[in-house]
Amino acid sequence: MRARDLSFVLIAVSFTAALALVARSQPESQVAVDDGPRFTRGNQMVRPDNYREWIYLSSGLGMSYTPGTADADPSFDNVFVNPSAYKSFVATGRWPEKTIFALEIRQSVSKGSINRKGHYQGEFAALEVHVKDERHFPGKWAFYGFNGPEKTASMIPTSADCYSCHEQHGAVDTVFVQFYPTLLDVAKRQGTIRTQY
Amino acid sequence: MRARDLSFVLIAVSFTAALALVARSQPESQVAVDDGPRFTRGNQMVRPDNYREWIYLSSGLGMSYTPGTADADPSFDNVFVNPSAYKSFVATGRWPEKTIFALEIRQSVSKGSINRKGHYQGEFAALEVHVKDERHFPGKWAFYGFNGPEKTASMIPTSADCYSCHEQHGAVDTVFVQFYPTLLDVAKRQGTIRTQY
Repeated sequence: MRARDLSFVLIAVSFTAALALVARSQPESQVAVDDGPRFTRGNQMVRPDNYREWIYLSSGLGMSYTPGTADADPSFDNVFVNPSAYKSFVATGRWPEKTIFALEIRQSVSKGSINRKGHYQGEFAALEVHVKDERHFPGKWAFYGFNGPEKTASMIPTSADCYSCHEQHGAVDTVFVQFYPTLLDVAKRQGTIRTQY
Repeated sequence: MRARDLSFVLIAVSFTAALALVARSQPESQVAVDDGPRFTRGNQMVRPDNYREWIYLSSGLGMSYTPGTADADPSFDNVFVNPSAYKSFVATGRWPEKTIFALEIRQSVSKGSINRKGHYQGEFAALEVHVKDERHFPGKWAFYGFNGPEKTASMIPTSADCYSCHEQHGAVDTVFVQFYPTLLDVAKRQGTIRTQY
């Protein structure tokens, strides 16, 4: 083997060794690079199956925007955002392209195991998704509902109340940041929050 | 430069290039490799400041293990687990060494912005930590409380109720998996759940 050949072999071996070392040192839990929305050719949104491994924002129980007596059997809602959008918001106070919120609705349970009062979370009920994608939507943002185990969903028409309500009352760019305490602090600090919400 | 010298230079350059390439391809949102507990030399636990970027497990509102009337002003609890332990549990149904749970307690709010009933989350109130570390603790698990902004905390004595209650009622290895619906399914599938909890 000539010296030059040997050099190339050594380069290849060391390059591979470096990659192998780095691969071993990666956290098993790391999130994939591309965590943006996926659409079918027919413009249906593909269910974001791993949203429970995204960044958690907050939860509510029995929340309602119309007055009334408390529900006897209220539902929990848990809100998650894709990690790349979260990272961007923490740095800038703004929601980037390809932001996705997953609002998971779960039944509540009061008595079970050793719990005797208050509420904890039970069965999955539904998943609602709010996504920012200017290339897909003239209004930048769109809503989708996954009410069962379906893998894709059609966009909720823009005539639905969710669009006008988020437009009017979302504290930052149609998003209800006012209900996400850790992000509310970010938006105030970054000066990106509306004066009224 | 001799051929051998050249080889070493090329090896070094290619190794560095490989590392640089891999570094560029990492997702910005990735979690640090070592997400286990950290202790001071005096055996205080260091507050896990980034727990809000861990994996969310579930929330409760006004949960109590003793009967009574509902609280007029109930608190939310949000539970997070470090990503490496989550990954391991999903694969095996067991909690590995260096598992950390962060239980965040927050005030609840009922009327604010456009919300009129039910509850959403407000100010931070306290952080409780449950950690598995056989090298540090004879009983494997320990509890810590961070009730203010302090950066370190002393271990809660093993005479406290939390130890005996978790020992007796934790569905998997002293952990209240019965209140974490997505993990309860995992434990049932993996056969690691107690018969009674």
